[in-house]
Amino acid sequence: MRKTDPSPRPNRPAFLGDLFESLTERGRRLLGWREGSGPEAIPVPDLAELGQRLLSRRGEASGVVIARALLAAFEDADPAARLAFLTALAESFGPDAKAVKTALAAMQKAPESIEAVEALHAAAEPRRQELLRRLNLAPGGTAALVRMREELLRHLRSHPDLRRVDADFAHLFGSWFNRGFLGLRHIDWNTPASILEKIIRYEAVHAIRNWDDLRNRLQPTDRRCYGFFHPQLVDEPLIFVEVALTRAIPDNVGGLLDLARQPIRAEEADTAVFYSISNTQRGLTGVSFGNFLIKQVVEELKAERPNIKTFVTLSPVPGFAAWLAAQRKDNSSDLISADQRLAFAALDRPGWQTDPATAEALRAPLLAAAATYFLRARSAAKRVIDPVARFHLGNGARLERLNHLGDVSANGMAQSHGLMVNYLYDLGQIEANHEAFAERSHIAASDSVKAALPVGTS
Amino acid sequence: MRKTDPSPRPNRPAFLGDLFESLTERGRRLLGWREGSGPEAIPVPDLAELGQRLLSRRGEASGVVIARALLAAFEDADPAARLAFLTALAESFGPDAKAVKTALAAMQKAPESIEAVEALHAAAEPRRQELLRRLNLAPGGTAALVRMREELLRHLRSHPDLRRVDADFAHLFGSWFNRGFLGLRHIDWNTPASILEKIIRYEAVHAIRNWDDLRNRLQPTDRRCYGFFHPQLVDEPLIFVEVALTRAIPDNVGGLLDLARQPIRAEEADTAVFYSISNTQRGLTGVSFGNFLIKQVVEELKAERPNIKTFVTLSPVPGFAAWLAAQRKDNSSDLISADQRLAFAALDRPGWQTDPATAEALRAPLLAAAATYFLRARSAAKRVIDPVARFHLGNGARLERLNHLGDVSANGMAQSHGLMVNYLYDLGQIEANHEAFAERSHIAASDSVKAALPVGTS
Amino acid sequence: MRKTDPSPRPNRPAFLGDLFESLTERGRRLLGWREGSGPEAIPVPDLAELGQRLLSRRGEASGVVIARALLAAFEDADPAARLAFLTALAESFGPDAKAVKTALAAMQKAPESIEAVEALHAAAEPRRQELLRRLNLAPGGTAALVRMREELLRHLRSHPDLRRVDADFAHLFGSWFNRGFLGLRHIDWNTPASILEKIIRYEAVHAIRNWDDLRNRLQPTDRRCYGFFHPQLVDEPLIFVEVALTRAIPDNVGGLLDLARQPIRAEEADTAVFYSISNTQRGLTGVSFGNFLIKQVVEELKAERPNIKTFVTLSPVPGFAAWLAAQRKDNSSDLISADQRLAFAALDRPGWQTDPATAEALRAPLLAAAATYFLRARSAAKRVIDPVARFHLGNGARLERLNHLGDVSANGMAQSHGLMVNYLYDLGQIEANHEAFAERSHIAASDSVKAALPVGTS
Amino acid sequence: MRKTDPSPRPNRPAFLGDLFESLTERGRRLLGWREGSGPEAIPVPDLAELGQRLLSRRGEASGVVIARALLAAFEDADPAARLAFLTALAESFGPDAKAVKTALAAMQKAPESIEAVEALHAAAEPRRQELLRRLNLAPGGTAALVRMREELLRHLRSHPDLRRVDADFAHLFGSWFNRGFLGLRHIDWNTPASILEKIIRYEAVHAIRNWDDLRNRLQPTDRRCYGFFHPQLVDEPLIFVEVALTRAIPDNVGGLLDLARQPIRAEEADTAVFYSISNTQRGLTGVSFGNFLIKQVVEELKAERPNIKTFVTLSPVPGFAAWLAAQRKDNSSDLISADQRLAFAALDRPGWQTDPATAEALRAPLLAAAATYFLRARSAAKRVIDPVARFHLGNGARLERLNHLGDVSANGMAQSHGLMVNYLYDLGQIEANHEAFAERSHIAASDSVKAALPVGTS
Repeated sequence: MRKTDPSPRPNRPAFLGDLFESLTERGRRLLGWREGSGPEAIPVPDLAELGQRLLSRRGEASGVVIARALLAAFEDADPAARLAFLTALAESFGPDAKAVKTALAAMQKAPESIEAVEALHAAAEPRRQELLRRLNLAPGGTAALVRMREELLRHLRSHPDLRRVDADFAHLFGSWFNRGFLGLRHIDWNTPASILEKIIRYEAVHAIRNWDDLRNRLQPTDRRCYGFFHPQLVDEPLIFVEVALTRAIPDNVGGLLDLARQPIRAEEADTAVFYSISNTQRGLTGVSFGNFLIKQVVEELKAERPNIKTFVTLSPVPGFAAWLAAQRKDNSSDLISADQRLAFAALDRPGWQTDPATAEALRAPLLAAAATYFLRARSAAKRVIDPVARFHLGNGARLERLNHLGDVSANGMAQSHGLMVNYLYDLGQIEANHEAFAERSHIAASDSVKAALPVGTS
Repeated sequence: MRKTDPSPRPNRPAFLGDLFESLTERGRRLLGWREGSGPEAIPVPDLAELGQRLLSRRGEASGVVIARALLAAFEDADPAARLAFLTALAESFGPDAKAVKTALAAMQKAPESIEAVEALHAAAEPRRQELLRRLNLAPGGTAALVRMREELLRHLRSHPDLRRVDADFAHLFGSWFNRGFLGLRHIDWNTPASILEKIIRYEAVHAIRNWDDLRNRLQPTDRRCYGFFHPQLVDEPLIFVEVALTRAIPDNVGGLLDLARQPIRAEEADTAVFYSISNTQRGLTGVSFGNFLIKQVVEELKAERPNIKTFVTLSPVPGFAAWLAAQRKDNSSDLISADQRLAFAALDRPGWQTDPATAEALRAPLLAAAATYFLRARSAAKRVIDPVARFHLGNGARLERLNHLGDVSANGMAQSHGLMVNYLYDLGQIEANHEAFAERSHIAASDSVKAALPVGTS
Repeated sequence: MRKTDPSPRPNRPAFLGDLFESLTERGRRLLGWREGSGPEAIPVPDLAELGQRLLSRRGEASGVVIARALLAAFEDADPAARLAFLTALAESFGPDAKAVKTALAAMQKAPESIEAVEALHAAAEPRRQELLRRLNLAPGGTAALVRMREELLRHLRSHPDLRRVDADFAHLFGSWFNRGFLGLRHIDWNTPASILEKIIRYEAVHAIRNWDDLRNRLQPTDRRCYGFFHPQLVDEPLIFVEVALTRAIPDNVGGLLDLARQPIRAEEADTAVFYSISNTQRGLTGVSFGNFLIKQVVEELKAERPNIKTFVTLSPVPGFAAWLAAQRKDNSSDLISADQRLAFAALDRPGWQTDPATAEALRAPLLAAAATYFLRARSAAKRVIDPVARFHLGNGARLERLNHLGDVSANGMAQSHGLMVNYLYDLGQIEANHEAFAERSHIAASDSVKAALPVGTS
Repeated sequence: MRKTDPSPRPNRPAFLGDLFESLTERGRRLLGWREGSGPEAIPVPDLAELGQRLLSRRGEASGVVIARALLAAFEDADPAARLAFLTALAESFGPDAKAVKTALAAMQKAPESIEAVEALHAAAEPRRQELLRRLNLAPGGTAALVRMREELLRHLRSHPDLRRVDADFAHLFGSWFNRGFLGLRHIDWNTPASILEKIIRYEAVHAIRNWDDLRNRLQPTDRRCYGFFHPQLVDEPLIFVEVALTRAIPDNVGGLLDLARQPIRAEEADTAVFYSISNTQRGLTGVSFGNFLIKQVVEELKAERPNIKTFVTLSPVPGFAAWLAAQRKDNSSDLISADQRLAFAALDRPGWQTDPATAEALRAPLLAAAATYFLRARSAAKRVIDPVARFHLGNGARLERLNHLGDVSANGMAQSHGLMVNYLYDLGQIEANHEAFAERSHIAASDSVKAALPVGTS
């Protein structure tokens, strides 16, 4: 890069000036640069070299400028150059080998010294952690780093060496996106369209078809939506939850989403239903927000509407159909009974749910299987199989009710034969439930769920 | 404490309920709790035990609640209990010894393995880092931790073991208060009084006597004030700088602060003078903001007022008088000449600056000594002696002018015989200056400063 | 209503309490009442009686409460009751006859007395003006009064007596919606959805098909939208204008609205095009905002983007086709020539614009007719015929260019045979143009427009 | 002026350009003009001529510009020129004589015609009303007009002709500052200093000595302050009220204002005390805000703190001492008894209140006189004498308690021999009280006040 230039360059700004000119408009825009012209992309500088420059400089005279340049150049680079930079992060920005060696030698002299261990910790920190912190100096840096990790995650499977880079991203993001730095915001029909279009885009559980569907989830008196926002990602909810205020616990999602339903007044509700919770930033994978969000929303709603006493989810059961298919295939499985096996043959007839008799005949065996699925079945790693269940039970919620044909959409039938469940958030029980689940794998479940277990099992 | 309770406690919330009741009103208020009554302080729980509980809990079901309780209890505890907790952080929340041993063993088997080094890094992280991150989950947690470190710093000298705790605070604060997370805000006469009273309190360079003096620095058309704010410390500027817009570079501070002076319009100014820059949070010691603040304010002002071309400070020289006294005492010093020694006898007559003839007679020898002080004299550690000079030169500024009798206040006479200096911020030269200073200790100085050096020296 | 109640009512609040309970939920909600239950509409009180009560009360102890009740009851009433109230305004809330008589008598005694005239003015003020001012005390009162007038306007044609009520509304609204009380706001993709949906609904010139179409007019770098807002109607733009930043003056609207077009950067534009301006509140008919809006937007854009030098509209010509048809029918008209008549036969073939030869053959005769339409033709009242032209010429703009086939949409072809025009806003000429137009009916037009006049005319 | 200019002026903008250049910097600044240079004041144009121009122009092509120019020139003019303009408003901007004559003639033809009366009303409107509405078009126009009336009010006594101008100001301000356009805002320690300094300046009842005194009234948990703001006067509270939250109704003001007192928590209070209410804009004299402010604050506090049940004032009695002196002088007055006369001799000894025996001896006679003062005594116009009483009783409050030595400051002793009173705001009784007071001069008073009346009176 730029090496063909024979003339000496007296100082850095000239160099950076060149760099800026080499960026395309898109790169500039992504970093929020207003001015600028350069229409064509000319070769961007070697990104890894810029990274070394950012780290090696003593002090930080141009930290902001170099960070900005590197991030802009990264956004601007072609996929191969970007991957090359990520790979360089793995290979060339690890711990300082010499410093580690020195620290290890010191430790051998004083094996019991806490100071020595802590010196070793400092020496062994991968240099890319400091690089990421310095990149964050740039305006828009946090968002650019989240995008960078998003790209990194796409390469993880094919480039396992990048895992160590990912671990550093995860470590820093865990600190930067600490719940203490997040703000809870009410999302409603007065929210800027630029944020609302992201709600439409990111909704992961029950797709939002258009702006009318969105309004139907935000504007009525018996609907709420809340999200966590980070001060540096102002237009981007990190996670959001959609809530319906109802009388009694609902057993199916169709009624909740019906555009033609009649809203009730918030004062009339006794129950708040979390019917959809969606993470939005793939680049923040592994940083957990949902637990905090649900609990804070419970507290908000309690304060705003003392008439609301019950806080539940209406949740999908994404792993149920696959698990049940496996049990049916495995004749040796004793998790389903012979009677159940017989009954489940009806599941293979598409559209069975529209036939009332069949639907009713399948109710008991399916609910029994569902109870088994949650309370008995475990994965090879001895974990609860259903990912949504793991999330809510891990939060300290209780498995409250199994709802036959709670979601008869194509997706609902495919993933769980229409089954939906409610998890109950009772703040007074959450900690005990959580502890029992985390330490003893004990699953908090209501009597009605336990009673659904097949007879003879326990 | 609490251990004498023989009865079983079925779940945590009851325990935490007790804890909350044991806090005094002050502790509650500091954490932003609205409700509550408990008038008397009853024994708070063992803080270190709470810390272990916060860390040991798998998952985070009650993370926010415990963090909040621990911080409230800490604020509420007596000084001895607080010191005991800080000491426990040093002694009982270091790296996990067993994990370190395992990681070391792995490393010995594969001494070249990067994975092994990185595993060692992770194992050797002091557990208090995670503790601090979890404490930050509490509402108001960041501010409480800044206060906690403030207290820690007061004990450092007498309790050197706390240094390692301090290092962890510094590491985390460096990440959390990364410039990327700070917002620049204009502080003016429309700013809330709750923030302005902090400007009065924290101003460290030229004390603000009262609200009229403050208004005189904020409201006139030729005055500006900017600060960095962190989203979690909304009412607290972390650092602020006061700026005067002038025609030409000023050579004394009296005129700038004169309540009776006639403001000029911002359009008439050609120079912006940074005449005071103050850090406000002792708990953020070591996290550097000033460098970023000055540079961003330069950019803001350039954009707002293209007529402003020159950006300088009007700075005190806090180390000059002490250094000069040392040279005069040390007859072997060749940093001042015999002629200067003779002239400096006049400095010992209090009030010399009010006698025009004496003041004029001292001008040349003092400025020559000042040039020597900046350009020649070095500390035992080979560093520039003056702390303000180290800050601005380290930022890449240039020593632009020496001002005889620039500050004739009692403080100005005492610390520097009235000397003030201007440092020039030329964005095009900052990086080169900074690099030369950081790598070769080269000091950027104007020709006029160099020309002030005593004859015969070079 | 309520009259069947034989028991005396000791004080008003009880009465008002009854009233509130009689309102339906809708009435309550429109006035922003949160609480409340009353499901069924029971007979609302006599609205005119409430109006008398509001006026007759000396002082204003319950002004806010009665105003609120009356407005809620009006919103809640059935159409007949609402019309009855409006009619009562005309009949029973006119000037105080006795006071007028007294004032007239005084005048006859002192026919030259200014005091007497001014006393007469005061006496002759219709009492409904004070009624409207008192109704405005209620929370949400301004908006409710705007809606009330909207309803009034629908009855004007069939109930000419209401005109005098309308005149009082217009008088007060002219004062309350004085431009000095309006705020200009930039409407963009960060604007709340609740406002944006109104932009979609109210756009009167070029319909906005959906949210994507809307985004295409707000978000690109070369698009702007501004509106005037009143402090009491926070979610309601009173008027808004859509602006395109372009290179050169555009001659057709299709390109501007093309969803697939490539935006330019705002720095590259030299022209701002006002391509749509829409009033939103029918209830504010007769209060003029457009003039102020365009001029202020010109000033905003000049300050923001000095590269923009030309400010024009791209405007429809709604009256052209009808006028031309009338000329063609009227063989005695000398506003079109025999050659033009011949050429215009082609206009009767639907789709002519898609045939290049026909389209070209019609260019000159159509533009000549258009020049005549603007510069020569006048209505029976001697006014310029085209309402859009009257608006822009009345604002002081200049008729700059006639654009053949500038709008080939069905609507464009129907109303103006595809003709669009540009009006130029040159702030330096606006006042002179306006004066010449207002006082001498002189029409400012560019040389090119004048040159399009048929030969032999002058 | 300007008339000596012999050369023709082609268009208005040039004229206005000249005008702008003739304004001094102060005039420009007051109107919020940023740019500008003109150092010296050269003769401003004839203000009345500008007014005619603003009115005579058909349409409003340059309305904003001329309005701005006129207001700037007015602010800039010397006092004589300003008075000349105000006088011209009285003399040359009255009703259009010709139009009035025509309207009168029409009326004589149809004496019963409502249309004719209403046409007369329109014709008789002083032209200065429209002038004031057009002046309001200018940015900052509303504030400038308020200042203009403030000046007008200072001349009223010496220039009675200006009363008719004042009436038009009052009429328009009554409409523009309608309570429906005002916003209630909480004023606290987070309020901008630019507003707080006005609270200090405008407090009319109990002077605020400095910023510490101010903070003591805003920041403690048991203090509140609310003000009404108008959208066009953003930094200017129009009226504000200071509130103390207390346990029980206080009987003296010294305790409320004590800087050293111990605040209580808002949850502990059962009473809200309005201890100071101040109008700030002399230019808005006659526009009534206080009534609305108190009632809305009562509603706010009820909603925020249901524990607060009692809403009272702690009010001065400014007319009491003067009235009592008059009774004592007038030997024929039977409003005080012979015994009282004897006792009141002690009032003539300065400092009597510091002698406990004297203070106690005066209690009963003074309270009896106070009861008479409120309940019996009337002015020549048959009105309650005390202006503060008229305000609160007119609002519908009840005279609740007479407090002997409630204000022992010099001012309190001088105006009311230390007497303070509480007025009680009971929302359920307000309307009845108000009506009885307005229509029958009935004064609502508690039993304890009535019981204080001298024996034998009734």
